[in-house]
Amino acid sequence: MVTESAVSTGGYVPPAVDVRALAELLDGEYSEVRTLVRANLATYAGVLDEAEQLGFDEFRERVREVVVEMAATGQTGRGFPKKYGGGGDVGASIAAFETLAFGDLSVLVKVGVQFGLFGGAILQLGTERHHEAHLPRLITGGLMGCFAMTETGHGSNVQALGTVARYDADSGQFVITTDGDAARKDYIGNAARHAELAVVFAQLEVGGERKGVHAFVVPIRVDGAVAPGVRIEDDGRKMGLNGVDNGRIWFDGVRVPREALLNRFADVTPEGIYESPIDNPDRRFFTMLGTLVQGRVSVAGGAINASKVALTIATKYGNRRRQFEAASDGEEQVLLDYGMHQRRLLPLIARTYALHFAQDVVRTQLHDVFSGIDDDERARRELEARAAGTKALGTWHATRTIQECREACGGAGYLAVNRFAALKADSDVFSTFEGDNHVLLQMVAKGLLTHYASEFENMDQLGMVRYVTGLAVDTVIEKTSVHKLLERVRDLLPGGDEWDQEAGLFDSEYQLAMLRFREEHMLAGLARRLKRGMDQEKHPGVVFSQVQDHVIAVAHAHVERLVLEAFVDKVRQLPDESGDSDGSSGEGEKGASGENKAALALLCDLFALSTIEADRAWFMEHGRLTVQRSKAIHREVNDLCRRVRPIAEDLVDAWNIPPEMLRSPDLVG
Amino acid sequence: MVTESAVSTGGYVPPAVDVRALAELLDGEYSEVRTLVRANLATYAGVLDEAEQLGFDEFRERVREVVVEMAATGQTGRGFPKKYGGGGDVGASIAAFETLAFGDLSVLVKVGVQFGLFGGAILQLGTERHHEAHLPRLITGGLMGCFAMTETGHGSNVQALGTVARYDADSGQFVITTDGDAARKDYIGNAARHAELAVVFAQLEVGGERKGVHAFVVPIRVDGAVAPGVRIEDDGRKMGLNGVDNGRIWFDGVRVPREALLNRFADVTPEGIYESPIDNPDRRFFTMLGTLVQGRVSVAGGAINASKVALTIATKYGNRRRQFEAASDGEEQVLLDYGMHQRRLLPLIARTYALHFAQDVVRTQLHDVFSGIDDDERARRELEARAAGTKALGTWHATRTIQECREACGGAGYLAVNRFAALKADSDVFSTFEGDNHVLLQMVAKGLLTHYASEFENMDQLGMVRYVTGLAVDTVIEKTSVHKLLERVRDLLPGGDEWDQEAGLFDSEYQLAMLRFREEHMLAGLARRLKRGMDQEKHPGVVFSQVQDHVIAVAHAHVERLVLEAFVDKVRQLPDESGDSDGSSGEGEKGASGENKAALALLCDLFALSTIEADRAWFMEHGRLTVQRSKAIHREVNDLCRRVRPIAEDLVDAWNIPPEMLRSPDLVG
Repeated sequence: MVTESAVSTGGYVPPAVDVRALAELLDGEYSEVRTLVRANLATYAGVLDEAEQLGFDEFRERVREVVVEMAATGQTGRGFPKKYGGGGDVGASIAAFETLAFGDLSVLVKVGVQFGLFGGAILQLGTERHHEAHLPRLITGGLMGCFAMTETGHGSNVQALGTVARYDADSGQFVITTDGDAARKDYIGNAARHAELAVVFAQLEVGGERKGVHAFVVPIRVDGAVAPGVRIEDDGRKMGLNGVDNGRIWFDGVRVPREALLNRFADVTPEGIYESPIDNPDRRFFTMLGTLVQGRVSVAGGAINASKVALTIATKYGNRRRQFEAASDGEEQVLLDYGMHQRRLLPLIARTYALHFAQDVVRTQLHDVFSGIDDDERARRELEARAAGTKALGTWHATRTIQECREACGGAGYLAVNRFAALKADSDVFSTFEGDNHVLLQMVAKGLLTHYASEFENMDQLGMVRYVTGLAVDTVIEKTSVHKLLERVRDLLPGGDEWDQEAGLFDSEYQLAMLRFREEHMLAGLARRLKRGMDQEKHPGVVFSQVQDHVIAVAHAHVERLVLEAFVDKVRQLPDESGDSDGSSGEGEKGASGENKAALALLCDLFALSTIEADRAWFMEHGRLTVQRSKAIHREVNDLCRRVRPIAEDLVDAWNIPPEMLRSPDLVG
Repeated sequence: MVTESAVSTGGYVPPAVDVRALAELLDGEYSEVRTLVRANLATYAGVLDEAEQLGFDEFRERVREVVVEMAATGQTGRGFPKKYGGGGDVGASIAAFETLAFGDLSVLVKVGVQFGLFGGAILQLGTERHHEAHLPRLITGGLMGCFAMTETGHGSNVQALGTVARYDADSGQFVITTDGDAARKDYIGNAARHAELAVVFAQLEVGGERKGVHAFVVPIRVDGAVAPGVRIEDDGRKMGLNGVDNGRIWFDGVRVPREALLNRFADVTPEGIYESPIDNPDRRFFTMLGTLVQGRVSVAGGAINASKVALTIATKYGNRRRQFEAASDGEEQVLLDYGMHQRRLLPLIARTYALHFAQDVVRTQLHDVFSGIDDDERARRELEARAAGTKALGTWHATRTIQECREACGGAGYLAVNRFAALKADSDVFSTFEGDNHVLLQMVAKGLLTHYASEFENMDQLGMVRYVTGLAVDTVIEKTSVHKLLERVRDLLPGGDEWDQEAGLFDSEYQLAMLRFREEHMLAGLARRLKRGMDQEKHPGVVFSQVQDHVIAVAHAHVERLVLEAFVDKVRQLPDESGDSDGSSGEGEKGASGENKAALALLCDLFALSTIEADRAWFMEHGRLTVQRSKAIHREVNDLCRRVRPIAEDLVDAWNIPPEMLRSPDLVG
């Protein structure tokens, strides 16, 4: 359906979107589990009301109930091995989680805590004894647990955690102790009420020697009562996600058997000998942490889908709400026919599509790594970087999009019934949990600087500065020298030195080359600045502090390039009008596929050009945009908005959000 | 006190800020009422807890109670005439409101609804009979009322309201009727529970003729029960501000006496003759609406002060919280020593100071206009435009600042006890109420286009297009032609045509000239584009839609220039080291004043340069920044951040926010 627009677009005929086919394309290979989750969301739609109506404690209990009932449908256990009652399909578990983000986000996060963090730690860090003991019960939600990593004093810097697990060889037990209030576990989901077990991250001490952070299974409640030696405090009300019971935990010499150590990557013999197949302690630590990448991929997908809910409501509202006469015919104009309103919403729709396809890529990588399809060092490293970057960009996108959509719905958007209140409050913490976005982007930048060389994988922030300011900076600079990369970029396009002045703005090779150039130029510049700091013998902290905005910018540019590549790849793979690139599509579908491909190509251009536009100052500063071309891009973005506008509602309908999840009777009805 | 920084700043000695003197400077002439409000905030600090602890209904009652008790201290009645129990000082009433924004924002908004909107309408639109009947009781809070303007179908477009007030000459009454559900009054504060009276905006119909929107005093509750013919519905839970009882009102032929018309600008005789000293109906409408400008000035000041609360917490946290080692000495580095953290927070502090001084200007204008000190058409017009612009920039600044500060406090910032939850949820609607920010900026742009010519004052959005695309566009273009304005800007600076390439970046004349150039160039460009649309005989709606982003950008540029002017003026007025520009300051204070002036000058540079930096693409596109200079500005902003960093905590301490309002024991302690 093409929405009628009061504003003429000069003979332009928008693509006739086949909404159902587009929805199928977006659901992709996981349509079965997504359909199940959509049905569950509709069944439990009441939880959106209950979030407002129930008291603090009641809502927590209700969310637990919903999570357990959803678990019974097989929705939440997809990622666990079949022999313990799971679905044996990691990709499907992420797809299920993403889809769940259309609904109440407390339910989503409680699912994440229970099955992703707690269950994931048991699965990934433990061995068969832990799997047998805990997986069957935790998959059903019968056994609730928590993931006790973060402490009040340490969030991002996990290696510096203060909790200690000392091995007592005489009793064959670990003794877990909270070393001062800064070492109390904090913000731990499921801790305040529901968790029986905690996976506790602590500094392992064997024979008086520190072995770094390891994870232990520690009972924190026995028959509903807090276990001896454990103290638990409620974190109380939060900005949102009040259906999740976050809390603080202190351990006062709590004893657990030797077998409580999650021993996939390291173990302690009864006699107190520490053993690990990974010699380098830093590498061991990052290997353990790396298994938890699933949480970041999940949050990224959840954030992207939460954005879709906001955009669907705001787009439908903008397509119905009239305000101010545009002409003298007495009828007011719908909001979405205003240029500014298009500017506010349509590039966000384009970016949401882009992130959706980027999420497909990272989910597939995760699936391949964790299913053993493609599981080597390089693949893991690439996955970790991509997960970190997609999480950062996806969650910031959600914050920005939900805010813009709320404002675009005016005062009506402020009423709780219209979803924005909950969406905004609940999703806000996404940018800081599962890795603070800035810290994650620093991790991405570190990876770029070291070219994923395994010997540097374990560098912390300081290590990065030391490394880059010392040993290997020349290599980095050499590898990414501006000269060479210019050549590399130039090779991609015809037109010699003037490639970027002559290429068509709608040529996706041009768009990609621009983002690649930015990334590589920024990277080379960063390496040079680090080297200069070293040459001047500055304090590493000073050097790092001075380049930190550059570090973040490099990572941001890198991830944005990956996102555009994912979108461009997706569009290219689709059969076009003549159906030549996909022989399998039947005669009747060709037309629809071609129209949908045209629609996605339009969106992809809007994403690419609005992304270049947003950073056009940088491109001008670095000789890759003339003033004329920069202004032309601005005009083209406006024009693309006008072209996307007639299909805007189709584009959000293709996300196929259960209508019950939109609520907002007065906005979308 | 200068905070010690782990990061060396190469021999730079920061200004020694005299926090108390700076606080006095900021409080300015209204220190008495601000001190009173701070004391009241401390007395009622418990309301911050109650906002979380009390149930939905209980909290509404508690907020009412607090408002009434605060009223008894004389805090809220400052703007009303003394003879009715008020303070007779409009400026003081705004200062009181601004200061109240350090606390719970439901209390703030209920004060705004009761004394600003409801009381303000009675005062400004009514005459003595209304004043005598209502002001004494409403000033004490004994009589609660509401301001029933917005309808479900019409927010920004007030002239198109659907409620009708028909004069029935036989009975000498007005009959008020809600014409369909879109015409129900909606989002009306105080309506759901507490209001006895409503000031109802409705289309006046006399003798079968429509006379435009007028305001009427209508009892909606009698002895606590909803009045006959009136229907009230609760708007229910909102994203925030749940201490305010917003609701919907329908009128079914409700009869009020002829005297219920607030008749300062128009009246109806008993016989049904409509009379007004203002002949032009549009002009009459905008005159009535213009008296309500106080609400926008209040919201602007409230938003700016809410930003201060967030920045104070985040700055103190950043100055205490350590994360990651910067050097090998084993101690982790405080967040505020990280370059990125400085980038995130310090330009926001600078902008908050800038907006504070801009708010001083608009408050003074408001005071002068409403106290009759400077009350002519031009002054009113200027006030209205400045109030609209400051409200838009101030409220968007609050949304952005609170968000950034929350993220800068990580997971801890997500806990309700740390204020961000309430700040974010409660302040969110500021950008859309009391005039949607985009609509307000369009109003500002309209004013610029018409040079405040009174004959065009009444143009609605469509009118603007018609006007500019028709009659007077040549004049506009002539007045702001690029050629002339370039000359004008050039006159301000030495250096001939190259003025902007040679002037020092820290020369405030240069900074101002840049913002003036941008504004005037954008304005001329807009006029040209409108003219072109007219020449091509395009549909006015299409023309407007296509230039709307330009319209918003012009207004934004204009207001930002006013804000910088306010900051530069303020700094210039301060006595410098030798005390020569203010003979009144004593010997001992000169040193302190000089240091404070230096600190503010640093902040002013940071505001100016980060503002230019944010729009450096535009300046490059329009030949006013070379690539080299653009990059230099980026470096200088980083450097300014490093220079401001040691005094950051002093700068937020000077806002003098009662410590009880910060809460956040774990963040700021």
